[in-house]
Amino acid sequence: MSLMKGWAAQEAGKPLVFSEFDLGPLGAEEVEVAVDYCGICHSDLSMIDNEWGMSRFPFVPGHEVIGRVIAVGSHAKGVKVGQRVGIGWTAESCMHCHQCLSGHQNLCPESVPTMGVHHGGFADKVRAHWAWVIPLPENIHLPSAGPLFCGGITVLKPFLAYSISPSARVGVVGIGGLGHMAIKFANAWGCEVTAFTSTAAKEAEARGFGAHHVVASRDAAAISAIAGTLDLLLVTVNVPMDWNAYIGTLAPRGRMHVVGAILEPIPISAFALILGEREVSGSPTGSPIDIATLLDFATRHDVRPQVEMFPMNQVNQALRHLADGKARYRIVLEA
Amino acid sequence: MSLMKGWAAQEAGKPLVFSEFDLGPLGAEEVEVAVDYCGICHSDLSMIDNEWGMSRFPFVPGHEVIGRVIAVGSHAKGVKVGQRVGIGWTAESCMHCHQCLSGHQNLCPESVPTMGVHHGGFADKVRAHWAWVIPLPENIHLPSAGPLFCGGITVLKPFLAYSISPSARVGVVGIGGLGHMAIKFANAWGCEVTAFTSTAAKEAEARGFGAHHVVASRDAAAISAIAGTLDLLLVTVNVPMDWNAYIGTLAPRGRMHVVGAILEPIPISAFALILGEREVSGSPTGSPIDIATLLDFATRHDVRPQVEMFPMNQVNQALRHLADGKARYRIVLEA
Repeated sequence: MSLMKGWAAQEAGKPLVFSEFDLGPLGAEEVEVAVDYCGICHSDLSMIDNEWGMSRFPFVPGHEVIGRVIAVGSHAKGVKVGQRVGIGWTAESCMHCHQCLSGHQNLCPESVPTMGVHHGGFADKVRAHWAWVIPLPENIHLPSAGPLFCGGITVLKPFLAYSISPSARVGVVGIGGLGHMAIKFANAWGCEVTAFTSTAAKEAEARGFGAHHVVASRDAAAISAIAGTLDLLLVTVNVPMDWNAYIGTLAPRGRMHVVGAILEPIPISAFALILGEREVSGSPTGSPIDIATLLDFATRHDVRPQVEMFPMNQVNQALRHLADGKARYRIVLEA
Repeated sequence: MSLMKGWAAQEAGKPLVFSEFDLGPLGAEEVEVAVDYCGICHSDLSMIDNEWGMSRFPFVPGHEVIGRVIAVGSHAKGVKVGQRVGIGWTAESCMHCHQCLSGHQNLCPESVPTMGVHHGGFADKVRAHWAWVIPLPENIHLPSAGPLFCGGITVLKPFLAYSISPSARVGVVGIGGLGHMAIKFANAWGCEVTAFTSTAAKEAEARGFGAHHVVASRDAAAISAIAGTLDLLLVTVNVPMDWNAYIGTLAPRGRMHVVGAILEPIPISAFALILGEREVSGSPTGSPIDIATLLDFATRHDVRPQVEMFPMNQVNQALRHLADGKARYRIVLEA
């Protein structure tokens, strides 16, 4: 019997209650981590509310874990007891499919998220396959590091996947949990950064995060004024936009990259792609090596998510704060 | 006075009539080419019919020219009188903008097509800027080479632009003027090729061009049977398709690349992009070096468009043949 104490939704949309779970024996390739901090992501809310119809209850959210290794399975590699580590969206991948063996473990069709089948990080401990338990760099700022493991890697992934140059002009649509990290990373990456926001009050903060320019995201004239200029446009919102206008901001050979969970299909003009040799793409989080690369880059450049701290036992207040759109810009629970 | 004799539409949709034009003095950076062969492209028909509202009459079509240099301007570089050359979609680019100076002359915002402002290749001679007059490899098959300069480079461009590996699995949607060349090129490139066609009668021919597999392009079950397998899906049709199903054929990190002039917006699911780290892109023709690279590759691998020859003075019959959907698979006019 291996006891875990965590905050669980007993059914969809209900407040979390403190509960105990028996995790059973540790798997041979599993690692057990004591949770020091866990970030809150919008997808935690979506899963609590069963918006995607795939939640199982009781449900322990949390997938932006910072902690210490307290146990390693007999065949676990690469981490040892006492080591500082983090765990993000993914807790397991099969390790032997085409995607896993070619370094794209985050695209493994058998991958298992940290919350759902597993119990997540709103708890005293959490488990994951050793490959997904990522060692932390020595000098990383621990309290704000959790959000790097989901939101952070989600927005940095296109820079890694497409070898974005520091000479690139990068746009970021939406300044929220993801968007504010995207601005910070794009600035640290050396790029010229344009932030798009529908909230005039966020302009000064966007500049504080590293945006060189701020454009009103619903102002058609302002958007068309920068037509043809952006090499990468990173879309972090999940609502329909004037997609034609946004694709129009792309320079020749520019790319619009979507990481927001936009439900309505995005209507793409073939001519807009063809005439400018443009690309539209999307991606989910990243591989273990992507995350390790991010941690190294973020630590060297001191890129930190802007976080608000809540004690773990105020998790329901923290979730309400996020649901009310008040989070500036990411919430972290402290054990 | 420099006389040119060519076939011109006097107004939209009318048969071409043999006419004479004074081309005026040759520009300092221009090259004049005597036309031996000129391919016919669907866009010739579109421009004759003024489908895109940008045709000027009298209009001499033709932009798949094979010929010999007969005059060079005082500042023309790289070609000399008597040399065998070809001219494709583009006749001029500014040579000094960001795109031109970085080798993407086909994306120059000031570029001028071979037909339109210029008189095209359904004529005894045609002019272009020296950079767009591309020398031919020694052993190229001249009568079938014209279509390489527009349709050919259009379908080979994504292989060049995205460094497609010979180990890739490539799909080609549509087996027409562009599609049949795409199949030949993808096969010669070393790829595993799947052709999609709505015409059962084209299956054997598709295999003859080099397709390893043929799928009925309107058969949802057949398309979903190959879900998740293609690294590159090249769309050469210009009609709406079941885009969700086609994007579903892409492997993780796969790309759907559009070269067909599809007028209706293509509805793209953000989740389909995100979950598979997929891309959607488009491109127009290619740069002078792209075309030179194509000519070298096509000659080494003996990739030839399948053409039907018509004498230049039967151009109206040839256009009718194309308009009736009877071309198998590309028509070339012979001077």
